[in-house]
Amino acid sequence: MSTKIPVSILGATGTVGQKFVRLLAEHPWFEIAAVAASEQSAGKRYGDIVRWRESTPLPERIAAMTVGRCEPTIPGRIAFSAIEAEIAGQVEQAFARAGVYVVTNTKTHRMDPDIPLLIPEVNHAHLGLLARQQRERGWSGGIVANPNCSTAGLVLGVAPLHRAFGIQRLFVATMQAVSGAGYPGVASLDALGNVIPFIGGEEEKMEQETAKILGSFAGDAIAEAAIATSAHTNRVPVIDGHLEVVSVGFGRRVTPDEAIAALEAFRAEGDVATLPSTPALAVEVDRRNDRPQSRLDIDRGAGMTVTVGRVRPCNLLDIRLVLLSHNTIRGAAGAAIQNAELLVARKYVK
Amino acid sequence: MSTKIPVSILGATGTVGQKFVRLLAEHPWFEIAAVAASEQSAGKRYGDIVRWRESTPLPERIAAMTVGRCEPTIPGRIAFSAIEAEIAGQVEQAFARAGVYVVTNTKTHRMDPDIPLLIPEVNHAHLGLLARQQRERGWSGGIVANPNCSTAGLVLGVAPLHRAFGIQRLFVATMQAVSGAGYPGVASLDALGNVIPFIGGEEEKMEQETAKILGSFAGDAIAEAAIATSAHTNRVPVIDGHLEVVSVGFGRRVTPDEAIAALEAFRAEGDVATLPSTPALAVEVDRRNDRPQSRLDIDRGAGMTVTVGRVRPCNLLDIRLVLLSHNTIRGAAGAAIQNAELLVARKYVK
Amino acid sequence: MSTKIPVSILGATGTVGQKFVRLLAEHPWFEIAAVAASEQSAGKRYGDIVRWRESTPLPERIAAMTVGRCEPTIPGRIAFSAIEAEIAGQVEQAFARAGVYVVTNTKTHRMDPDIPLLIPEVNHAHLGLLARQQRERGWSGGIVANPNCSTAGLVLGVAPLHRAFGIQRLFVATMQAVSGAGYPGVASLDALGNVIPFIGGEEEKMEQETAKILGSFAGDAIAEAAIATSAHTNRVPVIDGHLEVVSVGFGRRVTPDEAIAALEAFRAEGDVATLPSTPALAVEVDRRNDRPQSRLDIDRGAGMTVTVGRVRPCNLLDIRLVLLSHNTIRGAAGAAIQNAELLVARKYVK
Amino acid sequence: MSTKIPVSILGATGTVGQKFVRLLAEHPWFEIAAVAASEQSAGKRYGDIVRWRESTPLPERIAAMTVGRCEPTIPGRIAFSAIEAEIAGQVEQAFARAGVYVVTNTKTHRMDPDIPLLIPEVNHAHLGLLARQQRERGWSGGIVANPNCSTAGLVLGVAPLHRAFGIQRLFVATMQAVSGAGYPGVASLDALGNVIPFIGGEEEKMEQETAKILGSFAGDAIAEAAIATSAHTNRVPVIDGHLEVVSVGFGRRVTPDEAIAALEAFRAEGDVATLPSTPALAVEVDRRNDRPQSRLDIDRGAGMTVTVGRVRPCNLLDIRLVLLSHNTIRGAAGAAIQNAELLVARKYVK
Repeated sequence: MSTKIPVSILGATGTVGQKFVRLLAEHPWFEIAAVAASEQSAGKRYGDIVRWRESTPLPERIAAMTVGRCEPTIPGRIAFSAIEAEIAGQVEQAFARAGVYVVTNTKTHRMDPDIPLLIPEVNHAHLGLLARQQRERGWSGGIVANPNCSTAGLVLGVAPLHRAFGIQRLFVATMQAVSGAGYPGVASLDALGNVIPFIGGEEEKMEQETAKILGSFAGDAIAEAAIATSAHTNRVPVIDGHLEVVSVGFGRRVTPDEAIAALEAFRAEGDVATLPSTPALAVEVDRRNDRPQSRLDIDRGAGMTVTVGRVRPCNLLDIRLVLLSHNTIRGAAGAAIQNAELLVARKYVK
Repeated sequence: MSTKIPVSILGATGTVGQKFVRLLAEHPWFEIAAVAASEQSAGKRYGDIVRWRESTPLPERIAAMTVGRCEPTIPGRIAFSAIEAEIAGQVEQAFARAGVYVVTNTKTHRMDPDIPLLIPEVNHAHLGLLARQQRERGWSGGIVANPNCSTAGLVLGVAPLHRAFGIQRLFVATMQAVSGAGYPGVASLDALGNVIPFIGGEEEKMEQETAKILGSFAGDAIAEAAIATSAHTNRVPVIDGHLEVVSVGFGRRVTPDEAIAALEAFRAEGDVATLPSTPALAVEVDRRNDRPQSRLDIDRGAGMTVTVGRVRPCNLLDIRLVLLSHNTIRGAAGAAIQNAELLVARKYVK
Repeated sequence: MSTKIPVSILGATGTVGQKFVRLLAEHPWFEIAAVAASEQSAGKRYGDIVRWRESTPLPERIAAMTVGRCEPTIPGRIAFSAIEAEIAGQVEQAFARAGVYVVTNTKTHRMDPDIPLLIPEVNHAHLGLLARQQRERGWSGGIVANPNCSTAGLVLGVAPLHRAFGIQRLFVATMQAVSGAGYPGVASLDALGNVIPFIGGEEEKMEQETAKILGSFAGDAIAEAAIATSAHTNRVPVIDGHLEVVSVGFGRRVTPDEAIAALEAFRAEGDVATLPSTPALAVEVDRRNDRPQSRLDIDRGAGMTVTVGRVRPCNLLDIRLVLLSHNTIRGAAGAAIQNAELLVARKYVK
Repeated sequence: MSTKIPVSILGATGTVGQKFVRLLAEHPWFEIAAVAASEQSAGKRYGDIVRWRESTPLPERIAAMTVGRCEPTIPGRIAFSAIEAEIAGQVEQAFARAGVYVVTNTKTHRMDPDIPLLIPEVNHAHLGLLARQQRERGWSGGIVANPNCSTAGLVLGVAPLHRAFGIQRLFVATMQAVSGAGYPGVASLDALGNVIPFIGGEEEKMEQETAKILGSFAGDAIAEAAIATSAHTNRVPVIDGHLEVVSVGFGRRVTPDEAIAALEAFRAEGDVATLPSTPALAVEVDRRNDRPQSRLDIDRGAGMTVTVGRVRPCNLLDIRLVLLSHNTIRGAAGAAIQNAELLVARKYVK
């Protein structure tokens, strides 16, 4: 009999939901106990209704499961949420109220002052917000969010620089993969041989979430970091991988060598380092002059490593660099799973 | 009998050379009198050795021409140069010495202090450098250069803002088409489904050329504009069209409405306005929230219009915007042809 | 005052509808008098609701039109139909009953025995079916259909061979552009870097329509051609242009030289030759060994020419070849417009 | 101390050479003892001169190796050859003469009557040609070839049908990935949004190699199979994976159900089944109506499984189907490694 922790997946038929299925199917700590989706899918066999888009086969055991409703009566001590933002508020709160820990990839709760917006290597201490969340909301469970896919790579990639030198200003221009828009998502007539210089709400998310994640947790609240961020977000014809070009300004002059040293010295701390999803290097510097590249470098650290390259001086701020992260792993399903692992490591879930 | 001005094309077999052939084949003022290429091509029929990549057919008259050597003995009062940078210095100077006006797309002479780096709508007055060039170098002809393809779109797109408000700082991230690298250029294994965050020498070109083009011509020299530019250049899987996201900082606060008004009021001046290659609008503002897009908007003004969109505030500088230009027309062959037209309009060539 | 024939466009907001708008905006014989679409669009300004995807600007006059209902009360003596197959039967018949000639790109009526399935250069005589149609159905107008986009290129490309030698067997494998699926159509996650070896119903359409179009019209009916066709249809990441590789078997041995001679001798006959949309060459042979190519050759004859290349022997049948046609012009909107022109040339519409 | 068999890689810097390095780095039986390349690379550090294109990192041990010359003095009892066809004849024969077994991916020797052209699951008995080869050529080593990448998928995919029913006629149209052309290979200006209906020599290879591989080995020679094959080969913008649509004709009627049963019953025989590179299923039938797809299905069986789908009747021959194989694994490096494994299993190499 399995001693793994039973978990559920909310929104299990979508792109991120499928990624949860794939990543959790072989997880050492978790076992999928329920897959839930919209009313019209409930009661049907998961394998019959999912339009499976992963390149590895859908596991037989999961295919055979009956899809449940997104209600706390389904089994699972942790609920991985990939449901639509419109209904996420109500659904996720119902689970938390019922004692379940919800690790959500949905944007709805990310900026709530009592919800941790978590990248374990960067701000694991923010998990302390759960105490306030439970006290003020009267919940026995809780909600933990991971950042937007384009924020995740940016923040993790520059976190070592913030820790070492204090970032004050950030310029970022993204070249984001189509998988970030889900399925069917971006029409091929829009994507092929084209760049779309607009992703609704994306620039605002990057600007706001960055300040929260890099903020400090003091007692009961997050003091946001005083970083002015200007984001330009673009969609490019790439399957997976958000590549971002970044200029960073600090309170003092920082040389490329100092920046590289800080990036290379960065390590996950304490219990975060031993989580199953934490990669050996959360940030890896590639010194070749034309890297990272979306297609070649996204799978490092099983998709959990952010690759940084071309660290060089900037004519306007201090440092220019390029970073790449896997948008559906480090930027979505993998991030949520790592957050759930931290909940277990810190005994919120047993 | 034709009364058009006979012109030659140097480097006629390459990508830009072919674009010259296509654009000049129907030109109202110019007639192709010679096509020249490397030693090994000389003496052969152009149609036999060119690997024609334009989507319109190679004109029969040009196909039948015998390829000449890149020497001033070939006919033509203007020479359009698309030859390799390694040999451009010597070859182009030989033509200028022999009384030919060379309009070049090659980088070699762009930053020479006595060579006009010209975008007629922006800095036609710089053509005045020709007098110094001829006096100091003892030439009866001359050399006029057009900017690098990524610089051309940037500078034309922001020139109205510089004229109205004075630009001090520029941040630009480019998403450049593969045609900018010529043929065969970028390998498909590098381009497909990928972003390459590096183009050799491109960032330096953008930073240097911008200051020269937006500089002022006083007497005998260009006083470069005091603009600090930080460029991030990237290659994306797009055939034609360089899309650039830009943040602009001025000496005073400028609102998006003021910026849009300046962009929309921008018009070519005097004789520049009536050149055959000058489009009705050198800069066109598109107010839709997801435009310009590389594939849909590059052909405006027959490829000579720069489209600007998403003019909005910037959290770091003053204004953010997106601009798009056709890299092989406004950024290469079309630019050179417009420069040659200006030479005719101003009676350098008769 | 215009003396052009007023026409309407049914389904004017979709991909093919937009192509109708673009191609008809400058048509020498026709003038757009009405744009019609679904119930929910009716009453709104066309420019406000269309998501315009053509690379040329939406004409101001059309943008300002109020969208009408797909009912015969809208003006227009010809109705260009690009409406969904589900409702096309009822709608198109109502127009025909009311005296309007419907030229339809929809599949619904294509295989009806009294509906001409028309490619003017190939089977203009089939228009004679209109007499039967009007007599039996009691209509004062009528319905004329053009073939499916993948059939159009195939049939036109091999029609010269059928006329010269009599085709008995056809093997065809298609590589079809995503624009053939409309907008949003194929998801970019399906299209990018991928081939989808299935297009619903497409193989059956090619097999059936080919026999009808290449059939002979005798008195009141079409005697289908006795051609066995085997089609393999595939979607590839190309924007426009269906490329098809074909093997053809005849009743006797045919050499490549004979085949090329027949293809090159093919000309539109009589009044068909002078229709505005009929290209100089309906079929053009390209003798280069790697042509036609989707991206480079689709615009020949303003998208109405089928390019044929690589005519060579086949180990199983007689001749192998490659052909390319523009799927949204020769395969859709352009085809319907040419059909309408034939209706005018033959005095059905005055 | 390692008891693995030392092997060398000839042409180790190219695309296939790199794939050899990657696949052999962790091989249970083989250990890379030498990497060899052209004269100009010899003597240099492999990691310094290879432009590594695999998405997994270049192993440190291999990066540190000094590149050798393609001469039999380098260590290794087996030589994996990915060298250019122009020099392969001389080089490979020198190795065989010196007692080395050469498993080659190069085309040079494939059609030699005494060289096995091997797909172990299909024609392992052809290995018997080695005796004749050694006798007639006086070699103590030998040469074994694997088929061209597009042939490999075709032959393996239809081999179960040939064994069960006897194929007489084969139609095949390929949609081949750009990686099949090596690096830099196909220019992005040719590949992006395009289909190129020509690959030099490819159709002839498919037609000839198929007859040899499916032939029978009797005593000292291969009796080629009496199969007439007509191939249409095309390049599409896909990174990895050759998708092929096929029509198959037999001596008697075969239904799709019979064909599927034969495909699903196919298993590797005897010692072939236990080779490390032999997948559980050499041929896997996917019954979904739109599969296999290039991007989603190439990695089955670690790239050694051919996926077959859409088995249905054909209007001209008996059966139509779609098949997909990984062109650089089953079609190149993986194929050669499996061949080498068979040499070990059969005691040619100890």
